[in-house]
Amino acid sequence: MAGNSIGELFRVTTFGESHGAALGCVVDGVPPGIPLTEADLQHDLDRRRPGTSRYTTARREPDQVRILSGVFEGVTTGTSIGLLIENTDQRSQDYSAIKDLFRPGHADYSYEMKYGLRDYRGGGRSSARETAMRVAAGAIAKKYLAQKHGILVRGYLAQIGDIRCELKDWQQVEQNPFFCPDPDKLDALDELMRNLKKDGDSIGAKVTVMAERVPAGLGEPVFDRLDADLAHALMSINAVKGVEIGDGFAVVTKRGSENRDEITPTGFVSNHAGGVLGGISSGQTIIAHIAMKPTSSIMVPGRTINRQGEQVEMVTRGRHDPCVGIRAVPIAEAMLAIVLMDHLLRQRAQNGDVVPTLPRW
Amino acid sequence: MAGNSIGELFRVTTFGESHGAALGCVVDGVPPGIPLTEADLQHDLDRRRPGTSRYTTARREPDQVRILSGVFEGVTTGTSIGLLIENTDQRSQDYSAIKDLFRPGHADYSYEMKYGLRDYRGGGRSSARETAMRVAAGAIAKKYLAQKHGILVRGYLAQIGDIRCELKDWQQVEQNPFFCPDPDKLDALDELMRNLKKDGDSIGAKVTVMAERVPAGLGEPVFDRLDADLAHALMSINAVKGVEIGDGFAVVTKRGSENRDEITPTGFVSNHAGGVLGGISSGQTIIAHIAMKPTSSIMVPGRTINRQGEQVEMVTRGRHDPCVGIRAVPIAEAMLAIVLMDHLLRQRAQNGDVVPTLPRW
Amino acid sequence: MAGNSIGELFRVTTFGESHGAALGCVVDGVPPGIPLTEADLQHDLDRRRPGTSRYTTARREPDQVRILSGVFEGVTTGTSIGLLIENTDQRSQDYSAIKDLFRPGHADYSYEMKYGLRDYRGGGRSSARETAMRVAAGAIAKKYLAQKHGILVRGYLAQIGDIRCELKDWQQVEQNPFFCPDPDKLDALDELMRNLKKDGDSIGAKVTVMAERVPAGLGEPVFDRLDADLAHALMSINAVKGVEIGDGFAVVTKRGSENRDEITPTGFVSNHAGGVLGGISSGQTIIAHIAMKPTSSIMVPGRTINRQGEQVEMVTRGRHDPCVGIRAVPIAEAMLAIVLMDHLLRQRAQNGDVVPTLPRW
Amino acid sequence: MAGNSIGELFRVTTFGESHGAALGCVVDGVPPGIPLTEADLQHDLDRRRPGTSRYTTARREPDQVRILSGVFEGVTTGTSIGLLIENTDQRSQDYSAIKDLFRPGHADYSYEMKYGLRDYRGGGRSSARETAMRVAAGAIAKKYLAQKHGILVRGYLAQIGDIRCELKDWQQVEQNPFFCPDPDKLDALDELMRNLKKDGDSIGAKVTVMAERVPAGLGEPVFDRLDADLAHALMSINAVKGVEIGDGFAVVTKRGSENRDEITPTGFVSNHAGGVLGGISSGQTIIAHIAMKPTSSIMVPGRTINRQGEQVEMVTRGRHDPCVGIRAVPIAEAMLAIVLMDHLLRQRAQNGDVVPTLPRW
Repeated sequence: MAGNSIGELFRVTTFGESHGAALGCVVDGVPPGIPLTEADLQHDLDRRRPGTSRYTTARREPDQVRILSGVFEGVTTGTSIGLLIENTDQRSQDYSAIKDLFRPGHADYSYEMKYGLRDYRGGGRSSARETAMRVAAGAIAKKYLAQKHGILVRGYLAQIGDIRCELKDWQQVEQNPFFCPDPDKLDALDELMRNLKKDGDSIGAKVTVMAERVPAGLGEPVFDRLDADLAHALMSINAVKGVEIGDGFAVVTKRGSENRDEITPTGFVSNHAGGVLGGISSGQTIIAHIAMKPTSSIMVPGRTINRQGEQVEMVTRGRHDPCVGIRAVPIAEAMLAIVLMDHLLRQRAQNGDVVPTLPRW
Repeated sequence: MAGNSIGELFRVTTFGESHGAALGCVVDGVPPGIPLTEADLQHDLDRRRPGTSRYTTARREPDQVRILSGVFEGVTTGTSIGLLIENTDQRSQDYSAIKDLFRPGHADYSYEMKYGLRDYRGGGRSSARETAMRVAAGAIAKKYLAQKHGILVRGYLAQIGDIRCELKDWQQVEQNPFFCPDPDKLDALDELMRNLKKDGDSIGAKVTVMAERVPAGLGEPVFDRLDADLAHALMSINAVKGVEIGDGFAVVTKRGSENRDEITPTGFVSNHAGGVLGGISSGQTIIAHIAMKPTSSIMVPGRTINRQGEQVEMVTRGRHDPCVGIRAVPIAEAMLAIVLMDHLLRQRAQNGDVVPTLPRW
Repeated sequence: MAGNSIGELFRVTTFGESHGAALGCVVDGVPPGIPLTEADLQHDLDRRRPGTSRYTTARREPDQVRILSGVFEGVTTGTSIGLLIENTDQRSQDYSAIKDLFRPGHADYSYEMKYGLRDYRGGGRSSARETAMRVAAGAIAKKYLAQKHGILVRGYLAQIGDIRCELKDWQQVEQNPFFCPDPDKLDALDELMRNLKKDGDSIGAKVTVMAERVPAGLGEPVFDRLDADLAHALMSINAVKGVEIGDGFAVVTKRGSENRDEITPTGFVSNHAGGVLGGISSGQTIIAHIAMKPTSSIMVPGRTINRQGEQVEMVTRGRHDPCVGIRAVPIAEAMLAIVLMDHLLRQRAQNGDVVPTLPRW
Repeated sequence: MAGNSIGELFRVTTFGESHGAALGCVVDGVPPGIPLTEADLQHDLDRRRPGTSRYTTARREPDQVRILSGVFEGVTTGTSIGLLIENTDQRSQDYSAIKDLFRPGHADYSYEMKYGLRDYRGGGRSSARETAMRVAAGAIAKKYLAQKHGILVRGYLAQIGDIRCELKDWQQVEQNPFFCPDPDKLDALDELMRNLKKDGDSIGAKVTVMAERVPAGLGEPVFDRLDADLAHALMSINAVKGVEIGDGFAVVTKRGSENRDEITPTGFVSNHAGGVLGGISSGQTIIAHIAMKPTSSIMVPGRTINRQGEQVEMVTRGRHDPCVGIRAVPIAEAMLAIVLMDHLLRQRAQNGDVVPTLPRW
């Protein structure tokens, strides 16, 4: 209820501040008998980790995750899994300057209006550092989805500023620091990053995530639709300001005769719907896009007020990405995996007896 | 869990199929002592109701709502409120033709893959008729928000096809059948509708909703952010394929120095964030946009398969809107009101003692 | 959250006051394809109904339930089931005398302290009439449990005052107005009831419920144990003041060597545990007992205060049972069935893949 | 959903096995601004800790709790609080003998039927060691209740075997190793314990918990009654087989005229109800009793089967209490505090505006 949990049957509950003692989470609802090691989680944590490229923040955390419970003799036991990452690089002193200021574009003002106080060290609970635990929990979901159902969850950077990266080659995505699937755009991206660093400014981004081989029938009607739960999960990532399923906002100008996905004996002819019909998966690839705002942690001076309500000018010093969208790819993948895992269990609970009689493509 | 509820502290649970006996819902969590009558709900139900203009489906339901519980001597008692609308215009015979077909762009295929069967009459539970109950429940939330907190929730049609309707005049919105705030676009909209009717086709739309005078501090950190819950609620409306908060997808090309909303002693300078910072309301106006796909219930013939997997051609006959976005305005308002109401109660639960010491604009 | 729902995957949400327009509920999470008619629900409703014997209140409600949704062509569709019973015998005038009094032993005082007001007609929401909806929802669960899993849920009156009714013959239970399994006690019960009527007084009772052929493995560790959820469900019935699983309070004086249920190759040797080990069903019969307090709606004058805080003497007039425990048997069965149904779905969700390798007796 | 959480607004989610790396929990929903240190939690942990007296298991764990998040500069921040206790005394080798056996009276059989496997080291997740985290979380609730509302939560040992301990003196409770409020029974208790140790056997117990100065109005009608939630919380403690509120099972033989608690201008005349009317607190002291079965971890040989289904005889070696009820006192207090805390927040959410006009005693 206080907002630190997601999912119903597959449920992730996180804790931890940017500069507190540790980050942790409880992953509840993992079926028993799934092989799981810390290495399974570490791969995605490393993909998300700051300091992995020269384009992301210089903070250097090993982000070494420990599995504290729920795994015995190498497999899950069906009981709650506790995960922990100790914060080793806390450097609280960096942030004392902003203790009495409210950084524009950050959660400083809204947190303080909500709670009457705030942990001002690096954003505290509102820091993107919190997403490390999402990635760790998502890695468990990803593994289950892949191993038990052959579902493949992956994502890429679709756009930074005006540079659009088309999905030319999935292989490319993991071979450059941008998660960019289009090798022709790497130089332009590199140049843009260097210019932003020079300007002390930042830029927005668009990220695309997909899930392939999702069985038809996942998602609940009315409120807990698969796309609605996905919109919730993706919008809950720091800095996300928009979510699209399938064609998204492009449908505004479309006619019904072009937008509907016709069906033939060999399957759907198109996938404008992004794999969801009436809130329930259709068996087609799930496709979602998110818009991430440019971080407000920039060196360009900006106006704000201090605790006394006086006008002050501020710049954000310290370690910050010019484009937070770059590191958002594994986070968005994790959220998609968590939602799918949850709905897979929900579908099994209520409709475990159903034997579909329709063609499945 | 089976998806027919929304909200945690203010919780709406609905039932009912398009052509079943009745639609109903339970609204739980309404504080006691709020004056409430059926007339309070009927106004928004009438705004949503089909058959109110020549541009919407000809189905004529009085949509007369009854309050069955939770109100005594004219005020709410704090116990669960039962609402009921009997379906009077069922006409099941209209739909027998599609019993063994799977309409492209509809939930027929995905429902049947999920449940092994479906109520094929008018879409059953997947029909937009289900949204009547959202509107009724939302009207309770709207009334509470307005009366206790002075919060104003309202919306308008922002775009149909290529016709953009700017927010020129809120007064206009309720005076034309399109909820259009721009009187100069009414002729173009009328012409577009007539052309679509003639073509037997449909078109997408964009709807904008706002909430003014929302106190700062609503929304939970991490997963149950105000914007994430709003994305969930809005994406759960039939036909919605995209949700934006504030500037939405426009942030992809923005720089941090232009996107952050600076703060001065008299308040925020801009509202790119749409009233939400770090998932928590900032006290600025909440702004959200949704993209609605063109309905697939059109007269233009399309390909699909029947229950035997054979290719067939079909057209959708019966009563259908050329643009479902028109009627979505009161539905989107209802969802926004439900989310705000829920978070208002959540904020009071956990932070009821907090006395903010910051300026409030 | 506001307390009108029970269950997670099989979820029942009720509304309605004793003397309001109607009682209703939404039953969410019923798997699709289960044959269901109103007659399936009516049987247990008739067992619970007031006015069925001369020992229960004279209020005459047909308690005719309508299924408003979720059933199509005679089977469940997997979508939410709306149930409704109109209140036909409201007679509000009976209760105007107690409008400004706080009946001792009733919820009048606590409701008014909670909500600042109350529906004083017949107890409003706190009336035992609310349990009609539990019975209707429980009948759906009972049917599913019996049909899909062969589980048999039933109960009996174990004690009224000093009269203990041993489980001699299940056949007897439905053949007398007391749900008494011991034919030798019927005369004594009859005499006790007549004396209580004459005295205008009431008496407590103990009810026992059982579920046979429950598969091993239902229930979650730690908090949502099967016995803990059952304790919650049973304690939520009006007038219940105690819950026991298996031997219950008798264990206080037992030694471990006599209390443990030993295991042999053909099964457990005893069932002190009442079918639950570590919160999880063991495959043995689930056994629970509840203690029901004597109703405070009696003709014996008692002291209370009025709204002005003045001392007054009052008697409860109107239609009341001398022993509410009698009608509690079908209600307790319903609660047991609801809890089992919920955990059956939960077990399937998380452990649907598990193939037990142990002996099952 | 997988059962490792309790509470809605004040929500505790635990993880950890008896002989795993660590125990932990997330406490969500704590209001901000509450002073909190590790020492606040340690007091109750020490009261619960094994090895504190010669009557409890010899396992020696320092049970040193760490607060990992949610507290900043000595006060709670309103964000989730992560707690951790590392397991230092794991000694897995003690338990290898029972790897292929199913201890009678333990969860071995039911866990394995549920999950298809189990962590056999010391009971794994079903071990009473899990309750350490309940005590830690409960200490936070206790502190809030005491500090903000003056509510006092405490408990005592009411009975072991045939020895009844009356509430003669609260001061005594913390001054003997039995939590016994009756100094005249200490010798008898000591003798009983020594006899049980000698016999290698165990005994049941009854524990009483109370909450004083609870405001009227806590608890929800119908399902989430304060007493129902309390029954759930208390029955979820290992070994509990019965729960009573107020007079409990004694009401079975009571008449309404003696059982109702009459009201005078200066308050209630008696408290048979245990502080709850219609599921909602009445402002009187909340009183609950629990029955705890004798532990099955005893030296008296007993019959069971092994994994091959063969009959074997077994004794439980290792460190075990002759009466687990002794250590249950702080655990039961913790559960009561957690439930009250949760309902205090719930009451504030929905009825925060209510100004009671009735006398409050």
